[in-house]
Amino acid sequence: MVSARRVLVGSVAVGGGAPISVQSMLKCDPHDAKTSLRQLKRLQRCGCQIVRMAVPDQNSIPVLAELVKRSSIPLVADIHFQPLLALLAIDAGVAKVRINPGNMTRSGQIQVLRQASQAGIPLRAGLNSGSLPKGLLALDLPGQLVEGAERFLHLAREVGFEQLIFSLKASHASDTIEANRRFAQRYEYPLHIGLTEAGPLPEGLVHSALACQPLLAEGIGDTLRISLSAPPEIEVLAALALLEGMSLRPSRLRLVSCPTCGRTRQPLAPLLSAVRKLSPEIQRPLTVAVMGCEVNGPGEAAAADLGLIWMGGKIGLFRDGALIRTVERKGLLHALRQEIARLP
Amino acid sequence: MVSARRVLVGSVAVGGGAPISVQSMLKCDPHDAKTSLRQLKRLQRCGCQIVRMAVPDQNSIPVLAELVKRSSIPLVADIHFQPLLALLAIDAGVAKVRINPGNMTRSGQIQVLRQASQAGIPLRAGLNSGSLPKGLLALDLPGQLVEGAERFLHLAREVGFEQLIFSLKASHASDTIEANRRFAQRYEYPLHIGLTEAGPLPEGLVHSALACQPLLAEGIGDTLRISLSAPPEIEVLAALALLEGMSLRPSRLRLVSCPTCGRTRQPLAPLLSAVRKLSPEIQRPLTVAVMGCEVNGPGEAAAADLGLIWMGGKIGLFRDGALIRTVERKGLLHALRQEIARLP
Repeated sequence: MVSARRVLVGSVAVGGGAPISVQSMLKCDPHDAKTSLRQLKRLQRCGCQIVRMAVPDQNSIPVLAELVKRSSIPLVADIHFQPLLALLAIDAGVAKVRINPGNMTRSGQIQVLRQASQAGIPLRAGLNSGSLPKGLLALDLPGQLVEGAERFLHLAREVGFEQLIFSLKASHASDTIEANRRFAQRYEYPLHIGLTEAGPLPEGLVHSALACQPLLAEGIGDTLRISLSAPPEIEVLAALALLEGMSLRPSRLRLVSCPTCGRTRQPLAPLLSAVRKLSPEIQRPLTVAVMGCEVNGPGEAAAADLGLIWMGGKIGLFRDGALIRTVERKGLLHALRQEIARLP
Repeated sequence: MVSARRVLVGSVAVGGGAPISVQSMLKCDPHDAKTSLRQLKRLQRCGCQIVRMAVPDQNSIPVLAELVKRSSIPLVADIHFQPLLALLAIDAGVAKVRINPGNMTRSGQIQVLRQASQAGIPLRAGLNSGSLPKGLLALDLPGQLVEGAERFLHLAREVGFEQLIFSLKASHASDTIEANRRFAQRYEYPLHIGLTEAGPLPEGLVHSALACQPLLAEGIGDTLRISLSAPPEIEVLAALALLEGMSLRPSRLRLVSCPTCGRTRQPLAPLLSAVRKLSPEIQRPLTVAVMGCEVNGPGEAAAADLGLIWMGGKIGLFRDGALIRTVERKGLLHALRQEIARLP
């Protein structure tokens, strides 16, 4: 069921059996180059492979062009309503354009298809339940999402352009699953999966997992974004955890940490964030247990590659269940880096 | 596969086809009655049905007794190591005791079983991968969790006590699924499901969903806790979303909200938190869309029962896709309550 066609988004292959890539989107003001660049770098660091930026107006084009130059991961322009913005984004050198066939005229879509074809970049047609094209005949929402995608596909084929990725997103898991299943049964184009308007944490992530897990288990989905009303790094960490948890990509860092309870005397947050900071450097499967007390602490620490437990005002580092050293909180990052390097 | 036996935890039936109940645990200092009570009330309000409290020492017994008196949901004592603490908790009137057979002597376990039997309350034997009983013969972790549970079951049967709930938790989804499947195939006792030490948000929730979704889909699991290194209310919201998303309980509030992007000019957080605050009052299926811009905003707002969109400095309330009123941020809660009451 994995899409047979492969499309290149910059250096990232999507579809045709390529590893499932993780995407997110900038959430800051698209006219603020400095903040945008900072957010982009944070996304790169935490494992985002493709990043999208909203281009709501011409004033955001210079920022887009600046990011294209400075990004080490492919940048995608997110375009609604105005084909001109897509053309300007393509000129600025984006690796892909996402348009929404629900809010662009037919002639506008043709313009964008031609320009993408000339530039040699792919397009994603992103169908959303909240902004479907007018005049669809299908009776149910999954059918409407598929019909909207098909209409765009026919237009693209008329233009002779097939570097296409599709997404069919609803805000409910069942509709999203059904739409993607139907599309994947009929077409070989790569699918970008996820919910639209999934919601905030934690519910939005639960609904996203309920939508994406069954699709991925069936081999549907070539690239993934977990949309959340939350910072974009959270979207990336969630998508990576889903793919790693389903063995669809090699595991790197697995944080095992206790939920804390009345036994926990010191906060786990500083220990968790120290491990998180090191995460981009970890290129091997590594389980780190961050534990709050003596109930499961020693056991989980023994099962993990490294264990961290508060011991009074210091932090104990465990390996194979044995204490190897204690460190001050401010020396934790350095000590962790050392101990990870020493692991067999 | 649903457990045939039913156990009563205070007023909440667990197993035997009863609705799957949602649990969490107090995470504050168990010697601080005021903070504990405040956290308990918050948990009640957000839909928690059974709440557990760690009882690490005798000094926490008076707080436990106070909470038992003032809680409207069943209170469970979480006991490790010392049987005496379980006996004191039972005297204090808890609705259930959870013990960990991995860290209590055989004679201690017998004492607790006898006392629970006399008091007429159920016990949960909570087996955790991080604190397994010594001397298990099974070769794999799921087998060890099942064997640990079986040993406790034999002991309970010797004492003639069968008001039992079991949990078999590992920190990885695959082990947890396998252990619960094996146990459910052999025994009819209610199962409390979840991961142990699942981790922080968002990964911990992804792993929890990957563990609980397949079990629940197979009919395994009578009560659920999603353990997270996060505030306990988040655990409850996540568990409720999972059960509602799987149609295992009637939906109440579904928050549809956009992930925000460069198009979003005003923060969604205050709108989301206003809707969240009303959530305990909502006793009917209700979809509220909290949207950031004009792309999917109007469409999602039309599909939802109510839509909220920033309109300049005010908030627009939409019904059936039409603006019904605009309100100031400070009047939002009141206006929402009114409009929800007016819905057909």
